Amino acid sequence: MAAHDTDLARLDAWWRAANYLSVGQLYLLDNPLLREPLAAEHIKPRLLGHFGTVPGLTFIYAHANRTIKERDVEALFIAGPGHGGPGMVAASWLDGTYSEVYPEVTRDAAGMARLFRQFSFPGGIPSHAAPDTPGSIHEGGELGYSLSHAYGAVFDNPQLTVFCVVGDGEAETGPLATGWHGNKFVDPRTDGTVVPILHLNGWKIANPTILSRIPRSELTDLLRGYGHEPIFVDVDASDAHDEVHRRMAQAMDDALDQVARQRQDPAVVRPRTPAIVLRSPKGWTGPEIVDGKQVEGTWRSHQVPVDSARDDEEHRQVLDRWLRSYRPEELFDSAGRPVEEIDLVTPVGEARMSATPHANGGLLRRELTLPALADHLRELDEETDSSAMRELGTYLAEVIQRNRTDFRLFGPDETASNRLAPAVFEADSKRWNAASDPRDENLSRTGRIMEVLSEHQGQGWLEGYLLTGRHGIFATYEAFVHIVDSMFNQHAKWLESASGLPWRKPVSSFTYLLSSHVWQQDHNGFTHQDPGFLDLAVNKRADVVRVYLPPDANTLLSTVDHCLRTTDRMNVVVAGKQPAPQWFTPAEAVGHLERGASRLPWAGTDADGVDAVLACAGDVPTQEAIAAAAILREEAPGLRVRVVNVIDLMCLQPPSQHPHGMDDAAFDELFTTHAPIIFAFHGYPWLVHRLAYRRAGHANLHVRGYQERGTTTTPFDMRLLNDIDRFRLAADVLDRVAGPARDDTGLREDLERRRDQARAYTRLHGVDHPDVRTGGRRPLR
Amino acid sequence: MAAHDTDLARLDAWWRAANYLSVGQLYLLDNPLLREPLAAEHIKPRLLGHFGTVPGLTFIYAHANRTIKERDVEALFIAGPGHGGPGMVAASWLDGTYSEVYPEVTRDAAGMARLFRQFSFPGGIPSHAAPDTPGSIHEGGELGYSLSHAYGAVFDNPQLTVFCVVGDGEAETGPLATGWHGNKFVDPRTDGTVVPILHLNGWKIANPTILSRIPRSELTDLLRGYGHEPIFVDVDASDAHDEVHRRMAQAMDDALDQVARQRQDPAVVRPRTPAIVLRSPKGWTGPEIVDGKQVEGTWRSHQVPVDSARDDEEHRQVLDRWLRSYRPEELFDSAGRPVEEIDLVTPVGEARMSATPHANGGLLRRELTLPALADHLRELDEETDSSAMRELGTYLAEVIQRNRTDFRLFGPDETASNRLAPAVFEADSKRWNAASDPRDENLSRTGRIMEVLSEHQGQGWLEGYLLTGRHGIFATYEAFVHIVDSMFNQHAKWLESASGLPWRKPVSSFTYLLSSHVWQQDHNGFTHQDPGFLDLAVNKRADVVRVYLPPDANTLLSTVDHCLRTTDRMNVVVAGKQPAPQWFTPAEAVGHLERGASRLPWAGTDADGVDAVLACAGDVPTQEAIAAAAILREEAPGLRVRVVNVIDLMCLQPPSQHPHGMDDAAFDELFTTHAPIIFAFHGYPWLVHRLAYRRAGHANLHVRGYQERGTTTTPFDMRLLNDIDRFRLAADVLDRVAGPARDDTGLREDLERRRDQARAYTRLHGVDHPDVRTGGRRPLR
Repeated sequence: MAAHDTDLARLDAWWRAANYLSVGQLYLLDNPLLREPLAAEHIKPRLLGHFGTVPGLTFIYAHANRTIKERDVEALFIAGPGHGGPGMVAASWLDGTYSEVYPEVTRDAAGMARLFRQFSFPGGIPSHAAPDTPGSIHEGGELGYSLSHAYGAVFDNPQLTVFCVVGDGEAETGPLATGWHGNKFVDPRTDGTVVPILHLNGWKIANPTILSRIPRSELTDLLRGYGHEPIFVDVDASDAHDEVHRRMAQAMDDALDQVARQRQDPAVVRPRTPAIVLRSPKGWTGPEIVDGKQVEGTWRSHQVPVDSARDDEEHRQVLDRWLRSYRPEELFDSAGRPVEEIDLVTPVGEARMSATPHANGGLLRRELTLPALADHLRELDEETDSSAMRELGTYLAEVIQRNRTDFRLFGPDETASNRLAPAVFEADSKRWNAASDPRDENLSRTGRIMEVLSEHQGQGWLEGYLLTGRHGIFATYEAFVHIVDSMFNQHAKWLESASGLPWRKPVSSFTYLLSSHVWQQDHNGFTHQDPGFLDLAVNKRADVVRVYLPPDANTLLSTVDHCLRTTDRMNVVVAGKQPAPQWFTPAEAVGHLERGASRLPWAGTDADGVDAVLACAGDVPTQEAIAAAAILREEAPGLRVRVVNVIDLMCLQPPSQHPHGMDDAAFDELFTTHAPIIFAFHGYPWLVHRLAYRRAGHANLHVRGYQERGTTTTPFDMRLLNDIDRFRLAADVLDRVAGPARDDTGLREDLERRRDQARAYTRLHGVDHPDVRTGGRRPLR
Repeated sequence: MAAHDTDLARLDAWWRAANYLSVGQLYLLDNPLLREPLAAEHIKPRLLGHFGTVPGLTFIYAHANRTIKERDVEALFIAGPGHGGPGMVAASWLDGTYSEVYPEVTRDAAGMARLFRQFSFPGGIPSHAAPDTPGSIHEGGELGYSLSHAYGAVFDNPQLTVFCVVGDGEAETGPLATGWHGNKFVDPRTDGTVVPILHLNGWKIANPTILSRIPRSELTDLLRGYGHEPIFVDVDASDAHDEVHRRMAQAMDDALDQVARQRQDPAVVRPRTPAIVLRSPKGWTGPEIVDGKQVEGTWRSHQVPVDSARDDEEHRQVLDRWLRSYRPEELFDSAGRPVEEIDLVTPVGEARMSATPHANGGLLRRELTLPALADHLRELDEETDSSAMRELGTYLAEVIQRNRTDFRLFGPDETASNRLAPAVFEADSKRWNAASDPRDENLSRTGRIMEVLSEHQGQGWLEGYLLTGRHGIFATYEAFVHIVDSMFNQHAKWLESASGLPWRKPVSSFTYLLSSHVWQQDHNGFTHQDPGFLDLAVNKRADVVRVYLPPDANTLLSTVDHCLRTTDRMNVVVAGKQPAPQWFTPAEAVGHLERGASRLPWAGTDADGVDAVLACAGDVPTQEAIAAAAILREEAPGLRVRVVNVIDLMCLQPPSQHPHGMDDAAFDELFTTHAPIIFAFHGYPWLVHRLAYRRAGHANLHVRGYQERGTTTTPFDMRLLNDIDRFRLAADVLDRVAGPARDDTGLREDLERRRDQARAYTRLHGVDHPDVRTGGRRPLR
């Protein structure tokens, strides 16, 4: 299948066209086909965008197109260096996709003018391979996730090949450096193929790159060590383009031949997929020297190689020569349409990488087949404690069983620790295609539970899986989800931007299941205690973010069942894993989730009025608040205490701020506007203030939460340390309702004494006193 | 220097002792020397801690000790798998350091009992290699940073060798996967040596590890690709210990011989340091089989191999046999002190890795020689705009020049982009010991500016550098500092914990310089726009966290000068890089920083009363607030507007909440308690509410900030998009002070029209209207 010269000449025309269109986007306001002499007013006053990586990206895209045409490859393109956006936009305009998606940007001279003007222009399009770019599932503004996204895309897509361009700058990031190991988690029979193309562009913003400056032998070793067989393509700026195209075509052919051979060999468990290493000059085909300085082949071409083309005559001439070097007159006809030669090497329909439905996953997404929730919710009884996460495990096991091609569970080596085991392992195994060992348990090469000790990989894989139209959950330790804070931000931004694009169809929400949380890491200590992810999450736009704190198993199941039905959201669910008392009947759980917050009549003494509200959010705070209410019921008779649980945190905001916001009337009815509110909160206390500060009763609000006091100790000692224990909460209520009519001095002293006793018992015995090991029982009738 | 059998026998005794002491910590409440039959009451009721990795760690520690004794190596030990804490505590107790630091934990039977009891016990010590552990600079609760810490420690410590144990679980994380590349940034003449010891323990919490399950050839390739020459030591559970010690001693000797040879060879720019790969069974020397299941050599030994030793007779017997298998009677004398044989292989004084001052960097830290601040602060003039970051560059250049052995500047390829260049490059170069190229600029093998495209590396290196007693700054894009959110959390926690340990001396603060911030990423767009790090930062304890938003060059210089003098803090400084008007004279800048917030009399019209306060924090909000005040001065004469700038964000909190908190009287005086406060804030608006919600005037507070509306556009368009522009702020003031006495309808309409005009101009021309390109001028007399 050697490439014909004619084909390569056409490919070169395509490539020149893509580069011309890219430079045009960076520079031109008008005169798109250079049919007039280039004048100052044709040039943008503000030059924003990145050229350096573009010619390499378009070169690879052109050669990927060739394999699509010749081999019928079903391909998706991931541009790790996403700020090569102009190249991706250019490709999709040449493909015709751009004009289909944005009909006003026609595939002719007028559309080209529009394409150029809008790029990085106020009111126009972003400079990256953003959601706005057809064919993109990877924006790449923040670098490091291309390989993880690529692997996420090929899971359960056996027919799909992802050409994943890894920038050599990006390659220095941690997430990318471990991203290569994704190949230990793909099955050649049921998953697709990632063909990494390491682009040795040579330079970052202002420095050389490590991988371009280690000896070839070392780079070969590194890629082999990662499980890839490198195929090198070296390009110098002076090389003839026909020769360069031949080399690249050969490399792509070799790579795909090897892939095919290995995939057809039943003995191959883990293919050693080839990795193409393309060394090409940064700013290739751009101006070689500007103002006496070398630009092509250096970091100076990272953004715009000539920066004063509007104001400086000499720079303008450089730009003019540069643009004309692509010979636009050969590439576009009189109407500004790409010539037939270009169309001949352009794939059509969904085979176009810019038009593949895999890059607009909502087109492919089908609803999950979910279990009947009612079958999993359990009636309460007075005896048994349940682990909410363990109960959820049985539900998720059924989700896995019923959706064997488009649901996976992701996590960093913590599925068992988070107690989703053993149930989910009865439904399926953990994915593993590295060597096996007789001692292994629950591993298989086709397992649907994805565990690797990298939160970055888990998050990136799931993002890639969701963006290509599938479903999943990411379960991780609460404290360490901060490792992927920035990925949360970027995926939320993707969803925020995508929601403004009608042609992008909704994809499944990204659902975080945060367990082993701050109140349950008493054994691992301070490093494992951090509930601050919630503060981060609520910074993102309200139409995207949801935060749930289900207090028991039935509410957790209801929450996850709900989350799995949603699209285009970031759902954050915090759940307990320890055996704990259960509070909500099946019917109540469902109603509670719908309302967002509910009064617990059986826990309070507010039948005929409210002296104080004990509010709570989170499983442990709920246990303590209910226990505090029980103490007060016993020991401060006559005090009318309402107990309120909040499961959907965003209901604390007004509806003007968040779609789940509770209206003021309902809020005031529930929390009252007159009574002190003692709020026991799972996380850092001020988040509750932040969400509720516009409420009428805000001045009555007194929040207890995690105060950054942690260590290795017992569960109840953690609560004591942070003043969120039942005795403290009960005392808070008394402190706030105290008045001339009440004298609770004795009880308050008693509560303080009981705190001291609990502390002393723990220090002596190393365990909590039996009396405080439970959050009490709900009275059932 | 082949190891003698006698020495190895002693080493084995040391190792058995360390393992015995580790198991004792995990299990025993009493009967530390097993001189009575092991009974239930001797065993902790709650078994918390990790055994699996311990014997490997103590084995490596023992052999590192051997090199210290034989070769006079100055060594620091980093335990990547920090949850092997019992092993590290055991080693430091054997060293005698533990008893020096904690005199109550004597080096005898009574002390041993105390040592055992306190471990992971309420009121005792954490289970990790926490700050509490002598010799530790790396807690390792969150995995991935051991190599970055190790490289940070050896920078500018040419005599130091770090034995850095990399866990094979940790090795799957992104930060660790790129951490290996630290070897491209050390100079063998002026920096020390990192000897990585990859510990193939084989298993994580519940899964095998990737690196233990790829073929040996692939692992060899990987390490060579990382620039290391692997030396393999393979251990099976059945191997005779004397033989195993011989193998490891040989490997250590080979490694250190190679290191010495390469360091002595002047031709070697980048040494190919050996990396030892120790494959040993997880839970080595522990019980082989418990309850019929294989424990030694599997993930089941990750935490406690026998978990019911207190209640279950059979488990107790397993524990008893296990403990006695170390032959404690040979290891400790009648008083419970380690026998002489053990002392003979234990280094003394500061040569002990548990006592090296490098692990308690405050002992070595000397104050920086700082430039005279006055020489760098500039008088204001009415003409020139300055880039605050560029001005800071000249100051930092002098800091670099004056402190050539203990100050470095760290950042991810952004020093130039953040405008610290060119000045800092005139003072020194960027570190680079990979291949060089004639096109390179500002690179050298001894440069003190550390750039690599990995925020994780930059942060980890600086942590290691600071914890070993040196100084530095981490300069990065504001949006992408979220990549190291979790590292911020962990380092803050380290400082919080360390501050409670009097024997740990203060280390230099970690100072973040966040530039290319949300209001200056109009060209890179939405992915680069995120000011949420501040929300994260303020979750950590007030005695550790400082947040500064200097509005111009003089205030930025004053801030950084201050931060470089502080210890044990996390300083977050947000600074602008674009040319911008200057507001503060040198004297005012210093006074402003001291106060935290100041009235700007020249900007306001509040000489005889205050109708409204225009407050601001951050360079761009300050420009807009001052411009808004100017509009009102012109167009709403008679309106008395006070302008207040906040530089030290934490002054918004009361002193009870934060040491920098402004007292209520001063706050009320500055912001008034009656006037509406329109607050233009750099970040997400609610942070100001969160900090100020206890203030009397809180109900008057109306905050404008970033509303998560971003894209590629112009600087002023970003302000319009987020309603923080001068016209909006001026209108906000009018809206809030409106009353029967005022009719500003015309002006309000005019402001709205000017917003529309600004928007339209930008959409048409692609640049901001000249009238809004500046924040105005301070009137100077």
